Amino acid sequence: MRVHGFSPSGNCHKVRLLLAQLGRQEGRDYCWVETDSARGQTRTSEYLAKNPNGKVPMLELDDGRVLVESNAILCWLADGSGFLPADPWQRAQALSWMFFEQYSHEPYIAVARFICGWTPLDSPRRAGLPVLRQCGHAALAVMERHLASTPWFTGDDYGIADIALFAYTGVAPHGGIALDAYPAVRAWLARVAATPGFVPMPAPDAAAQALIDQST
Amino acid sequence: MRVHGFSPSGNCHKVRLLLAQLGRQEGRDYCWVETDSARGQTRTSEYLAKNPNGKVPMLELDDGRVLVESNAILCWLADGSGFLPADPWQRAQALSWMFFEQYSHEPYIAVARFICGWTPLDSPRRAGLPVLRQCGHAALAVMERHLASTPWFTGDDYGIADIALFAYTGVAPHGGIALDAYPAVRAWLARVAATPGFVPMPAPDAAAQALIDQST
Repeated sequence: MRVHGFSPSGNCHKVRLLLAQLGRQEGRDYCWVETDSARGQTRTSEYLAKNPNGKVPMLELDDGRVLVESNAILCWLADGSGFLPADPWQRAQALSWMFFEQYSHEPYIAVARFICGWTPLDSPRRAGLPVLRQCGHAALAVMERHLASTPWFTGDDYGIADIALFAYTGVAPHGGIALDAYPAVRAWLARVAATPGFVPMPAPDAAAQALIDQST
Repeated sequence: MRVHGFSPSGNCHKVRLLLAQLGRQEGRDYCWVETDSARGQTRTSEYLAKNPNGKVPMLELDDGRVLVESNAILCWLADGSGFLPADPWQRAQALSWMFFEQYSHEPYIAVARFICGWTPLDSPRRAGLPVLRQCGHAALAVMERHLASTPWFTGDDYGIADIALFAYTGVAPHGGIALDAYPAVRAWLARVAATPGFVPMPAPDAAAQALIDQST
């Protein structure tokens, strides 16, 4: 199976992290096809034929079947494992946090980071940063409140809701969203990083890091 | 069980539609608690204690447990029924379309509608309408392409992916997003409306309709 992904993308990293924690090895059990969405590689006709929405990550099975949307990929890969609760109510809670991530978290925290690190310093998109940061903090406050009483997003066990939310939360400061006010979130990030088989988000390349340094 | 919802909201209508099609009757099997998010009723301390993210819909069980995020609620309610595929790959495809809906569809099509019908004519948010409409059309184009070769979003059977996408697609014109260019989408909308137990989205009230008429 192949994972089409852009390494600096948290949405893509989710898939790499879960595969690592499921014990799947890159190169042996799956191939990672680096796909630079910031340079139009998800907008080629070949790519759009597989995923008309033109986004990464995309999972492609050996028989050609395709699954898109990072959190749907996590659900499929985790199905039957300890990373996705078997109990329907707990599974629904995991999904709830994953929809929260895609609606109330990623569009602010990930987008602020993308603008800071992957758009020019004179991009008109930078005018949106204050609002994105404000909404990102609102999402972090919701997470902080939840994590005050539970170690993981779905209770006693680490799972794909944690993986989904970890991806961009840990790198929120790249977008100028500091985590200082969220001690429970920071403690949870440390717990995630200590789980067996954890692999960190790749650091931004030098060009992106230089832009981040000038943006935050 | 109680459903806290705002009737003009497509996200809330999803839950009402699925419950109707599952044969659950309002008043007997569940209570609908009308909660006007446009007037701050999701921002009271009582509401935020149950859902810190301050959104509708919210499902509340008799024992006080709460589930939020419309599409997670659909998954939980549909679990074990014909509305959610039992096959893991097909279930993942349903989730994929539901994540598409929340990330690439609702933030444009539903938000354009909300701005047109539920904000004043001089709202600064109206400056965002052209971009929202452009992105909404991009989502409709993805749906059109998919529906050219399949009757329902997850293949042979109507299910919660259709319910999730139906909610705001049918009322996209309220936000100034016409459906003329999408014949497969319009045919699918008609198929959804003909499913057993279907209940339509409530029409906007007179005030909202007047704003819509002046906005589109």
